[in-house]
Amino acid sequence: MLVVMRKGATADEIRGVAEAIEARGFRAHPIPGAQRTAIGVTGNKGALDAPVFESLPDVLEVIPVSHAYKLVSREVKNEDTIVRVGEVPVGGRGLTIVAGPCAVESREQTLIVARAIKKAGAHILRGGAFKPRTSPYSFQGLGEEGLRILAEAREATGLPVVTEALDNDGVDLVERYADAIQIGARNMQNFSLLKRAGRAKKPVILKRGMSATLEEFLMSAEYILSEGNYDVILCERGVRTFSDFSRNTLDLAIVPAVKKISHLPILVDPSHGTGSREKVAPLSRASAAVGADGLMIEVHHAPNTALSDGPQSITPEMFAQLVQDLKQIAPVIDRSLT
Amino acid sequence: MLVVMRKGATADEIRGVAEAIEARGFRAHPIPGAQRTAIGVTGNKGALDAPVFESLPDVLEVIPVSHAYKLVSREVKNEDTIVRVGEVPVGGRGLTIVAGPCAVESREQTLIVARAIKKAGAHILRGGAFKPRTSPYSFQGLGEEGLRILAEAREATGLPVVTEALDNDGVDLVERYADAIQIGARNMQNFSLLKRAGRAKKPVILKRGMSATLEEFLMSAEYILSEGNYDVILCERGVRTFSDFSRNTLDLAIVPAVKKISHLPILVDPSHGTGSREKVAPLSRASAAVGADGLMIEVHHAPNTALSDGPQSITPEMFAQLVQDLKQIAPVIDRSLT
Amino acid sequence: MLVVMRKGATADEIRGVAEAIEARGFRAHPIPGAQRTAIGVTGNKGALDAPVFESLPDVLEVIPVSHAYKLVSREVKNEDTIVRVGEVPVGGRGLTIVAGPCAVESREQTLIVARAIKKAGAHILRGGAFKPRTSPYSFQGLGEEGLRILAEAREATGLPVVTEALDNDGVDLVERYADAIQIGARNMQNFSLLKRAGRAKKPVILKRGMSATLEEFLMSAEYILSEGNYDVILCERGVRTFSDFSRNTLDLAIVPAVKKISHLPILVDPSHGTGSREKVAPLSRASAAVGADGLMIEVHHAPNTALSDGPQSITPEMFAQLVQDLKQIAPVIDRSLT
Amino acid sequence: MLVVMRKGATADEIRGVAEAIEARGFRAHPIPGAQRTAIGVTGNKGALDAPVFESLPDVLEVIPVSHAYKLVSREVKNEDTIVRVGEVPVGGRGLTIVAGPCAVESREQTLIVARAIKKAGAHILRGGAFKPRTSPYSFQGLGEEGLRILAEAREATGLPVVTEALDNDGVDLVERYADAIQIGARNMQNFSLLKRAGRAKKPVILKRGMSATLEEFLMSAEYILSEGNYDVILCERGVRTFSDFSRNTLDLAIVPAVKKISHLPILVDPSHGTGSREKVAPLSRASAAVGADGLMIEVHHAPNTALSDGPQSITPEMFAQLVQDLKQIAPVIDRSLT
Repeated sequence: MLVVMRKGATADEIRGVAEAIEARGFRAHPIPGAQRTAIGVTGNKGALDAPVFESLPDVLEVIPVSHAYKLVSREVKNEDTIVRVGEVPVGGRGLTIVAGPCAVESREQTLIVARAIKKAGAHILRGGAFKPRTSPYSFQGLGEEGLRILAEAREATGLPVVTEALDNDGVDLVERYADAIQIGARNMQNFSLLKRAGRAKKPVILKRGMSATLEEFLMSAEYILSEGNYDVILCERGVRTFSDFSRNTLDLAIVPAVKKISHLPILVDPSHGTGSREKVAPLSRASAAVGADGLMIEVHHAPNTALSDGPQSITPEMFAQLVQDLKQIAPVIDRSLT
Repeated sequence: MLVVMRKGATADEIRGVAEAIEARGFRAHPIPGAQRTAIGVTGNKGALDAPVFESLPDVLEVIPVSHAYKLVSREVKNEDTIVRVGEVPVGGRGLTIVAGPCAVESREQTLIVARAIKKAGAHILRGGAFKPRTSPYSFQGLGEEGLRILAEAREATGLPVVTEALDNDGVDLVERYADAIQIGARNMQNFSLLKRAGRAKKPVILKRGMSATLEEFLMSAEYILSEGNYDVILCERGVRTFSDFSRNTLDLAIVPAVKKISHLPILVDPSHGTGSREKVAPLSRASAAVGADGLMIEVHHAPNTALSDGPQSITPEMFAQLVQDLKQIAPVIDRSLT
Repeated sequence: MLVVMRKGATADEIRGVAEAIEARGFRAHPIPGAQRTAIGVTGNKGALDAPVFESLPDVLEVIPVSHAYKLVSREVKNEDTIVRVGEVPVGGRGLTIVAGPCAVESREQTLIVARAIKKAGAHILRGGAFKPRTSPYSFQGLGEEGLRILAEAREATGLPVVTEALDNDGVDLVERYADAIQIGARNMQNFSLLKRAGRAKKPVILKRGMSATLEEFLMSAEYILSEGNYDVILCERGVRTFSDFSRNTLDLAIVPAVKKISHLPILVDPSHGTGSREKVAPLSRASAAVGADGLMIEVHHAPNTALSDGPQSITPEMFAQLVQDLKQIAPVIDRSLT
Repeated sequence: MLVVMRKGATADEIRGVAEAIEARGFRAHPIPGAQRTAIGVTGNKGALDAPVFESLPDVLEVIPVSHAYKLVSREVKNEDTIVRVGEVPVGGRGLTIVAGPCAVESREQTLIVARAIKKAGAHILRGGAFKPRTSPYSFQGLGEEGLRILAEAREATGLPVVTEALDNDGVDLVERYADAIQIGARNMQNFSLLKRAGRAKKPVILKRGMSATLEEFLMSAEYILSEGNYDVILCERGVRTFSDFSRNTLDLAIVPAVKKISHLPILVDPSHGTGSREKVAPLSRASAAVGADGLMIEVHHAPNTALSDGPQSITPEMFAQLVQDLKQIAPVIDRSLT
């Protein structure tokens, strides 16, 4: 942390601030400059302490330097983490495809889609049993019945299953039926839920919040790791901006940004990231090319009658074609898709 | 909802879409135009159905028309709702001041601040016992001990108390000790928590999410009302934008926007909305002048040693001066501050 | 500027970076920390040099410390600047009201509005002769004929006149006819135009760009001052965010932020800032209460037939009422409105 | 356009609004609904007329339906436009690579980079002679001397040349020396400059503004076409959002969005889009994979000493490797890179 003094601060004033810093148990390192003196602070706990110093007298501004994440950081663990969902590795050399309907609507629908994506080459089945809906009057998911259907689809296809939990009771259930627990964008800073997921026995897919910075995203993952669950997969799903031609703005630069700082694997969800069927394939190709560890794609055999997010679901035929395209892109980024 | 056909769509194609609309139980009203035909759709449940039609053949785009909120809407209840927190009315002709420390840190700190704000003219005491923190390593609040301290401060000052709940267990506790339950910005779309708050016996202060649209904000309030709790107070606390000189961008235009559509009262929180002490008073005056029903302001007697959000807390002296300013502004907007 | 080394950087590596810094003519001040070493850099030209160091080997990140604006800064001139538009002071103790139609549509319309706002208490007349329109097919303004009408309205009412220039030829004309030159939001970083305005003989009202940071806004003003024109008035007019219930998001926190750093006066334009008539009065009151030096408000005697921006124009009656409200707010912030 | 009446509007009130619509020369088509009546409006000039009706009595809201762009639209010209820069086609089946230094700094630097990118497979040379800089104190480019150097580099390598013009005088010069004229993001709504570019004899590369919607972007292109210059190439270069780990947020979904609506080719600039060297290659691959017609990439042989934007410039070696990667991606999207 760097505390910048106002121009013209006297030696006494600078000493006063330095003493205030040391009084808090940190070390102060004054750096005299031509215009102003700055004071380097060490021994603090990162950016989150910064604001304390802003209100000291004669301080012009405070500049955070180090960051607060630890367990998610490459400084703690340099090699890439590979998380296993069932038997399927996420991270490493493979490109992992998670696919399935937005919501589990019925046994029949789920089995049709699961078999179709399995045949096309998907590795993991997704499908929502508990749906976070903007309106209380919208379809909220089948609940435990949906989880049973997902488990049946796993039996039928051999694909491990991931599904979202909305609260602690939901984690109890999802943990029992599924192979990975999804925490959705709206709950990225539901810290109570993150702590519960940190005590779960299954891997967690953590989606980026709609307006989360990189630091906030990693700190939310840190919540999970700090409770003992190291099997965390990040997922970019678009952020909210002024941009009006897609439902969200898919922020693909986060993939190399995460890879630089963190050892955790990261997926991209172009279905929520764009909100429109015709953009899913182009942005899926882009996500693979940017270096993501995998994709999460909504597929529905009859999207026009889907109970939720039909317009962003692609058909099994479109999905099969997309997997072929991804197979061609994977080697460019030194991955394989099998 | 309006379904716009592609230019050159034939009469048969238009009829096909109209039939698809009617097959879903809606009514279709074709509007032939010089360039294209549009089809008005009635009988639907509002914007949330819109995307279903986007993927029909020959449809260029779908334009949502009506909205999905009901109970929060002035179309259901035209007169302003007045919510009572303890004995204190929020909404109506008064300007209500909620103040207190960001976090309950100790019995002594809470009583000092509570007495100071009471003396300066505040109506309701705020203070966090459960703190949502970006980092798992930051101070997380005193928990139930904090709630007891708040209850004691109520006894000592007569001020009713509001405090945040982070999960369902938290609502159980807050409901028991406090006079109103706050749902924070990060939980605005924690639908499980909203439903629980909708079954609570106490009023709810619902903060706007960091990137929530007006419709999403009102729909989250609708979740609470739809469970039977009609005592909901909205609170604007700044949204996240590119703007870099304040922690958040306080979006004051939401006050007249809410007033037009909804009967619910709305507060403004300029402490989180700006994140810096020196901006709290100017933005508080602005919030009163724009027509908010009240303010929520962080006050700390020693902000430089506060355990959270010190830099945005004002001192009791600054607060007392601010209340005097607000007394002068209130009559301009036909309110009183007593 | 602070250059943060990667954890584990050796003494040699740190020395190498320090030498690279000094080789560029700056001074390097290493600050050893428990985790990492940072190097304070002095003698540089502010934030704009920062990125150069990011790519040096073993550097983790570079933190900008000082800023690049000079002439606009309070560090160069501490007392508030008062700019005179005609005889009317902007800045200082008064609250200045600029009002008038979005576009000059005709001699009759302009005179009607000018007389009405004069009577209601406005100090300066605004009106567009050159209109920046999103579409090439929209009304582009009356051009020089519009400037003549504005000059005539000045004769008739005694109000000085401000109007926008879109290019260098426009500045030539506006300089001749009007009392102040407006640079619009879309041209805030039209540096060629800023330089020309810096050589103009008349004051300049510079509107904030739709996504301009505070630093960019002040640097654009710096362009004008650096060419010799010190009479610059800033104007906040809303920024573009995801927020959907107003045309732009009026960012009122910029007023105290500017006041802290710069001596230049700042107006607020709630008409463009909200885009809707019913929000203009509430946000005007808020703008006065936050401490702006004045307001810029669109008024039209028949807004429903206005050739541009009718929906955000208020009527002369609404304007007269608003001025009365502002008179009550002005003393709260130690200003007067006469 | 759809005008939605308030609930409970009487038949007379609805008729009144319909008459007001027809009085403006449009046609009104009332659509009675269960809750409210809406009135379809046809014959209008698109979204830009919409606000006029918002302030009519008893109108709840107005929904824009059609758009205002014409010449850029696929409805006017369905087949893809191929623009020739010198002899190089942009659009169509090829993937076009524009590369070069951010700024022309010297004859030697420009020739070194030009030869290196030519050898690596670039098709067009870029380099700034007139630089739009946030600060008036930063290097502003070599001006006409820079244009001469670019022309010499064209002679030496055979690569056609594109460079930015900042004002009308700049267009005069760039038109004379270069093969295409770039309009930068900050000037996207400098309508005076767009009109001048519309009368130029050379193709125009139009960059998206930092907070431009798709409609605004296309309307700015429409300005150029409407003056007679049909050779317009669009370029996405990142937008400004809250996202903090890249200089801008590269909004790749605009590529399929433009392709659906417009026949104009579109490039992506991942150098400005990310602002950091290490993200340029991943986002370049993503841009090709999403379906862009080409890329614009900053290359510098000694980026750490570059006079502008060094941190986002890649070296000739990194560029050569990237071109190899792009060759593998091109066939996936049915393009070739030769």
